[in-house]
Amino acid sequence: MTKHVYTFGDGKAEGKTEMKNLLGGKGANLAEMNLIGVPVPAGFTITTEVCTKYNQEGEEATFAAIKGEVEDAVRATEKAMNAKFGSQSDEFPLLLSVRSGARVSMPGMMDTVLNLGMNDDTVKIVAEKSGNERFAWDSYRRFIQMYGDVVMGVEAEKGESDPFEIEIEKIKEEKGYKLDTEFTPEDLKKLVEAFKKVIKDKTGKAFPNDPWEQLWGSVAAVFGSWNNKRAIYYRRMHQIPDEWGTAVNVQAMVYGNMGKNSATGVAFTRDAATGEDIFNGEYLIDAQGEDVVAGIRTPQEITKEGSLRWAKRAGISEEQRKAEFPSLEEAMPVVYKELDEVQQKLEDHYKDMQDLEFTIQDGKLWMLQTRNGKRTGAAMVKMAVDMMEEGMIDEKTAMLRVEPNRLDELLHPVFDKEAIKDAHTIAKGLPASPGAATGRVVFDADEAEEWKGRGEKVVLVRTETSPEDLSGMNVSEGILTSRGGMTSHAAVVARGMGKCCVSGAGDVVVNYAKKEFTVDGKAYKEGDWISLNGSTGEIYDGKVATIDPELAGNFGQIMELAEKYTRMDVRTNADTPHDAETAFNFGAKGIGLCRTEHMFFEGDRIKAVREMILANDESGRRKALEKLLPWQREDFEGILKAMDGYGVTIRLLDPPLHEFTPNDEKSQEQMAKELGIPADEVKAKVESLHEFNPMLGHRGCRLGNTYPEITEMQARAIIEAACNLKSQGLNPKPEIMVPLIGTVGELKMQEEIIRNVAADVFKEKGVEVDYLVGTMIEIPRAALTADEVAEVAEFFSFGTNDLTQMTFGYSRDDAGKFLPIYLEKGLLKNDPFQVLDQTGVGQLVEMGTEKGRSAKKDLKVGICGEHGGEPSSVEFCHRVGMNYVSCSPFRVPIARLAAAQANIR
Amino acid sequence: MTKHVYTFGDGKAEGKTEMKNLLGGKGANLAEMNLIGVPVPAGFTITTEVCTKYNQEGEEATFAAIKGEVEDAVRATEKAMNAKFGSQSDEFPLLLSVRSGARVSMPGMMDTVLNLGMNDDTVKIVAEKSGNERFAWDSYRRFIQMYGDVVMGVEAEKGESDPFEIEIEKIKEEKGYKLDTEFTPEDLKKLVEAFKKVIKDKTGKAFPNDPWEQLWGSVAAVFGSWNNKRAIYYRRMHQIPDEWGTAVNVQAMVYGNMGKNSATGVAFTRDAATGEDIFNGEYLIDAQGEDVVAGIRTPQEITKEGSLRWAKRAGISEEQRKAEFPSLEEAMPVVYKELDEVQQKLEDHYKDMQDLEFTIQDGKLWMLQTRNGKRTGAAMVKMAVDMMEEGMIDEKTAMLRVEPNRLDELLHPVFDKEAIKDAHTIAKGLPASPGAATGRVVFDADEAEEWKGRGEKVVLVRTETSPEDLSGMNVSEGILTSRGGMTSHAAVVARGMGKCCVSGAGDVVVNYAKKEFTVDGKAYKEGDWISLNGSTGEIYDGKVATIDPELAGNFGQIMELAEKYTRMDVRTNADTPHDAETAFNFGAKGIGLCRTEHMFFEGDRIKAVREMILANDESGRRKALEKLLPWQREDFEGILKAMDGYGVTIRLLDPPLHEFTPNDEKSQEQMAKELGIPADEVKAKVESLHEFNPMLGHRGCRLGNTYPEITEMQARAIIEAACNLKSQGLNPKPEIMVPLIGTVGELKMQEEIIRNVAADVFKEKGVEVDYLVGTMIEIPRAALTADEVAEVAEFFSFGTNDLTQMTFGYSRDDAGKFLPIYLEKGLLKNDPFQVLDQTGVGQLVEMGTEKGRSAKKDLKVGICGEHGGEPSSVEFCHRVGMNYVSCSPFRVPIARLAAAQANIR
Repeated sequence: MTKHVYTFGDGKAEGKTEMKNLLGGKGANLAEMNLIGVPVPAGFTITTEVCTKYNQEGEEATFAAIKGEVEDAVRATEKAMNAKFGSQSDEFPLLLSVRSGARVSMPGMMDTVLNLGMNDDTVKIVAEKSGNERFAWDSYRRFIQMYGDVVMGVEAEKGESDPFEIEIEKIKEEKGYKLDTEFTPEDLKKLVEAFKKVIKDKTGKAFPNDPWEQLWGSVAAVFGSWNNKRAIYYRRMHQIPDEWGTAVNVQAMVYGNMGKNSATGVAFTRDAATGEDIFNGEYLIDAQGEDVVAGIRTPQEITKEGSLRWAKRAGISEEQRKAEFPSLEEAMPVVYKELDEVQQKLEDHYKDMQDLEFTIQDGKLWMLQTRNGKRTGAAMVKMAVDMMEEGMIDEKTAMLRVEPNRLDELLHPVFDKEAIKDAHTIAKGLPASPGAATGRVVFDADEAEEWKGRGEKVVLVRTETSPEDLSGMNVSEGILTSRGGMTSHAAVVARGMGKCCVSGAGDVVVNYAKKEFTVDGKAYKEGDWISLNGSTGEIYDGKVATIDPELAGNFGQIMELAEKYTRMDVRTNADTPHDAETAFNFGAKGIGLCRTEHMFFEGDRIKAVREMILANDESGRRKALEKLLPWQREDFEGILKAMDGYGVTIRLLDPPLHEFTPNDEKSQEQMAKELGIPADEVKAKVESLHEFNPMLGHRGCRLGNTYPEITEMQARAIIEAACNLKSQGLNPKPEIMVPLIGTVGELKMQEEIIRNVAADVFKEKGVEVDYLVGTMIEIPRAALTADEVAEVAEFFSFGTNDLTQMTFGYSRDDAGKFLPIYLEKGLLKNDPFQVLDQTGVGQLVEMGTEKGRSAKKDLKVGICGEHGGEPSSVEFCHRVGMNYVSCSPFRVPIARLAAAQANIR
Repeated sequence: MTKHVYTFGDGKAEGKTEMKNLLGGKGANLAEMNLIGVPVPAGFTITTEVCTKYNQEGEEATFAAIKGEVEDAVRATEKAMNAKFGSQSDEFPLLLSVRSGARVSMPGMMDTVLNLGMNDDTVKIVAEKSGNERFAWDSYRRFIQMYGDVVMGVEAEKGESDPFEIEIEKIKEEKGYKLDTEFTPEDLKKLVEAFKKVIKDKTGKAFPNDPWEQLWGSVAAVFGSWNNKRAIYYRRMHQIPDEWGTAVNVQAMVYGNMGKNSATGVAFTRDAATGEDIFNGEYLIDAQGEDVVAGIRTPQEITKEGSLRWAKRAGISEEQRKAEFPSLEEAMPVVYKELDEVQQKLEDHYKDMQDLEFTIQDGKLWMLQTRNGKRTGAAMVKMAVDMMEEGMIDEKTAMLRVEPNRLDELLHPVFDKEAIKDAHTIAKGLPASPGAATGRVVFDADEAEEWKGRGEKVVLVRTETSPEDLSGMNVSEGILTSRGGMTSHAAVVARGMGKCCVSGAGDVVVNYAKKEFTVDGKAYKEGDWISLNGSTGEIYDGKVATIDPELAGNFGQIMELAEKYTRMDVRTNADTPHDAETAFNFGAKGIGLCRTEHMFFEGDRIKAVREMILANDESGRRKALEKLLPWQREDFEGILKAMDGYGVTIRLLDPPLHEFTPNDEKSQEQMAKELGIPADEVKAKVESLHEFNPMLGHRGCRLGNTYPEITEMQARAIIEAACNLKSQGLNPKPEIMVPLIGTVGELKMQEEIIRNVAADVFKEKGVEVDYLVGTMIEIPRAALTADEVAEVAEFFSFGTNDLTQMTFGYSRDDAGKFLPIYLEKGLLKNDPFQVLDQTGVGQLVEMGTEKGRSAKKDLKVGICGEHGGEPSSVEFCHRVGMNYVSCSPFRVPIARLAAAQANIR
């Protein structure tokens, strides 16, 4: 016969941690705590299978099947707690809590009933036994209210307040009370009667006095709440199967508000902020759990050490501290000692930092909950390393303990914890590039450079940024834009620079003419101080102190372990020697994407580029390209040198040509003047370059195949650079990447050009270097025909940014109009530009890899989209069998850790 | 032992038609003609296998292997022709032609040598025996020239003329000749010497006098030419495998220029223009084959009947005709009779109209070539039906005889054949929509309607068209645009209307202000007559008479057969009752795509649409949508009625909203005035709707999921329309199609809205109708996750236009910048927007169909992109197992035929 109910209590339990699927997370943990001798209020768990039965076969059949087991379990609980359920005697009655508990936590989604067992009889016994009439009647009225709401379905009428709250307000008004705490026992008794009447009026049924009826009603309500709207929605959002069901945990109530010998608190086995191995926490005497977090009374520290530190910080004298805010260690030394032993036991048992809830009822310690504690990124790293060194966990476990994304917190400046408490938030934008920045507002890239030249710290504020702002962005502490999403120019470039950026702050209205921005009418002028939190998107008024990251120590140890356990390499996306060096210091092994177009904007280069665009024929283009050649060669020398000995994937020109021409008439006239041609001609050319959907237009290898001379120049610059370095005794490894291939023929044509140029250069220089020719796989058709493409390509690099755009049919620049709504409505679980869509886009990546390797067994395969630095996407890349992932320099450590974790898993 | 050489001649042959792979097309046919008793100059074929051997093992090994067989074959040829190869006696020598001949025709790609066997000795015998010294020496000098070029590789120096031509010019200059025909035998003898010297000077080798050496040299040259550049390029373009190789055909030369008793000509067994069963052709006495086509002499008709008709048309008296241009029937009655018998025999044998080449040498008829003749669309249909009725071919063969695309010629007006001969071409654009049109130029849609109202025929000339031009386009005979490609608005709409259109005529410069267009400076004013050929893109000056199509008769018979042999249905893309009726008359069984957005432009509707777009909230949008509801319902009633009893797939709103707003300031102000709101607000809204890549932006179901009220209105209009019709006793079958699905969730959300609305309407009306909810598969991700999508969708319709755009990453609107170059360079075989890319896009279509059916076995699957009317794509759809294809009304017959052919194949 199937067992439906599992008891726990008094150091015994029928369940254990491993039975999570059957007992839910909470139930399994309650059982486990009992097993290891931690004092836990006794109770029992009705399995998740019963929930499924309940939803399939209905209440009657289900309850008939479990009735006997539940009754036995209540008896066992009575015995363990030495109390009687619905006691008619004068013993303190057994009061129960009834809570949901699914396999995975679904916080707040399902129903809970507390103080079950209270009725007109037991309330009196509680009042008498506790010596606290107010406590007893308050508990009773709370129970009726909760039961009426959760079990009996009392609801507010449309447009009115909750009917129970209406009764409470009535008495408060009558008596002139401000707070609920002012209620007298007599008030509460009246409230009990009023509540009962509400229930009768609203439901036509009486509030049940019988504890057993109360119990069954509550169990039914919890099971039923598995299918309430918000739970279904939550499951859909988090992709939790409907079949899992919830368990029901029935547990004896304990009270921390039964007098001076009672208390309640929360504690951490280590410091959640720093990771230090210091037991810490807060508690309140004669209080309920919610009082600790409510902030009405000042919670006290648990340890004496903590208490002393706290008092010092708060400027409280030792006398006052001892008198008014003693630590638990001082106030209840015996219980404290037990708690300290328990916390140690729990951490040893779960081998991780625990977040505990406890209640002391009349001098007796009860543990209500233990779970792995949340922690900062820094603490996460420190704890993992410490526990590994303590021998508590092994290397692999330590690795898996660190969430890769949280490393980000360690890589950028952060706000000083104390300073940020006083900061005033002006507005919020998107957390486009992490870190903290504080500086004086400027509205122009040139101004930024000028101010920086004077030694000022600046924050560049723009509606949007463009390639011309690059150098200004580079000297700023942070960048704020009023438009653009997570993948706008500002966001992408800032992430590449590892620079803090808040983008798309819609409330910020920039007025360049007035040199100010306004938020809700308040103006911030050039020179005013503001601060940005690129990890949250918050914008603060004024200066907020920041702290620089520390990259050695524990962080370094984790990175060493990542190196040891990884299979995949991590490369970086870098367009400059500086970025390449940064990434190299973070452990990047090569460059996965060097975009050449950024090099086209600097200084006089843009002039030559525009000259090329305006040329009427091939010879005109060649003339302009000749001017670009030495610049490009110099760029490539710098980058190949910075990554000497490692592969450097250089992508040929990718963007449509109109990105290099100015759109406004004034700049066009300027351009015409510089090039010595009529302004009309410039305008006509710019117009002729206009495209309806530039993303799907004349770009990528389509440029190189229609203007082969561009590819020739770039190939020559790369190969010449490599030859020059080799002559200097270095070991350059260029990998030339052709973008936007849709057919193998396109690649073949580009490859021929490149190989011909390389052969020429080798002959001219008398030096040969190894180089590869490969391609981006970023067009669906390229993935679908990867077997054909691989016959020519020596490597594949999945450009998952564009591949996502085309596979979904989403323009990144425009998706802002519907993506947020889609995420909100649960139509998409993640922004597919941030987290690789494994179901759809991933199919193409997998297919492309498999087909590619079917044609060329040792084909080198990598990824160079934004996803290359996103942990779940990195894991996918590992599973697919990629050789490397590539990401922006500041994501390199994250990707390295994710890659190692993927390999361990 | 493998046989390498196959002889033919004198009514015998070692090969036959079925041996095409081994003997090449030409060789197999020469053999076959011999077998059926047609007089063919004897000769032999060296197999394609020898070509492969030649290219792998080289000349020496290959020729050693075939030497004996070739020598035997030459002997056999000598015997058959009663002539000696390289004869030293005074017999007429055997002269040979050496020609290539692959499995499939590769016209002009490989080398040919004629008059082989001529040398210093034989030339004299030929002169003597033919009694024509000039003929002999001219043949000789031609042979040397050809041999020098083809076999010995004499080439022009860079920047100079051909060295043989230089010698010819020298003599012409010396003698003051204008034409080659003025050369005397003495001149030709000098030329022979000069040519020999050229060869010696250029190659260092002497021209070989030995006929055997000539023969082997020529065979080697032909085999070698399989791998010349243009042949390789041609094979790549036409995807002909390199391994196939070419055969070499060596055949006795015959001469039609040996005097008055010789002649040469071409003939057709039926009339290639009309299909009538009339033997016809042209010939010239004492001439070579090239003279007939060169146009220097007027060719004469073969039959007397033809000759009489020709004379009448040319205005030539019977006397003159008889004297100067007698028919072959009259001039050489015996030979004519033999030719007539031969043509009958050949048609009976090949069971198709034959295109013949013949030569009469000194009163003896020789057939040089027979092949299936090219014909007009009308002739194609008539011949297929006639031959079927004659019992020559069966129904299936008759079906396969008609190229579906050629039906187009029958469905539209065409220019009168005589009238077009005098027409003057002004310029050329793209053949955007077939047919012929003649009318007076107007530049404005309103003007078009006004002129039409006055009874004038007009041609609408615009730089580009937009939805506002619809009604103007509808009343015009044809449309001419100076910009835009094959898929521009004008092109797509015109094809839908079955209206002639020439688009993207770049030489046409439109000046609206002056009401004129100019081509190369010449102006055409409003009211001037022009004519358009939408099948060729040609634009003619003035009126050119047109002839209307005739759709019954043979065409009807072919369509009936299509009906009998098809498995797939053919639906139509139609947005109006008129289009639906047209398509119904062409045999469409339902509508595969009814676009609802076109309905949003007419009259006052656009105002309501704009009101909706400008609304600040849902209630504002609902108010505007309520105005649209009755219009939409009326539209749907009309369309459902026109296709009563057949499925009508209605696509919900698809384009981005900015397509409904005006872009120029003036129209914006007008719009603001109409809606009674400030112009700034309109401008701001229009700006906020701007997208960088609208193709990948806020459109399709993304609109319906962010503004569900739009879907509600459209669903209501559709269901109400259907209910109304059902109440009238009709049988409407609406199929509601959700566009641009990328995830199943998007479809699910739309489906819920539609089903809820339908349930409401059924309740309100007290009537229920059957309806389906399905989706377009036009986003790669939808195809990749089709199994998920099919759990909700009741049908799939592949939108291969958008699917092609996203799979290739090509914007149709912008691809004009590189697609033509790609096609020219052979990077693409076809424009993927015209011919479905089976390799890439096809994979997604196949995958989508399979995955969809794996989830829902009976899932209805169709296609509604432009490809639905393109024969090779229709065949693909059949193979994939689609239920139907859908195309524009005027492509319905084509698709029906293609579908039937696919089923037969």
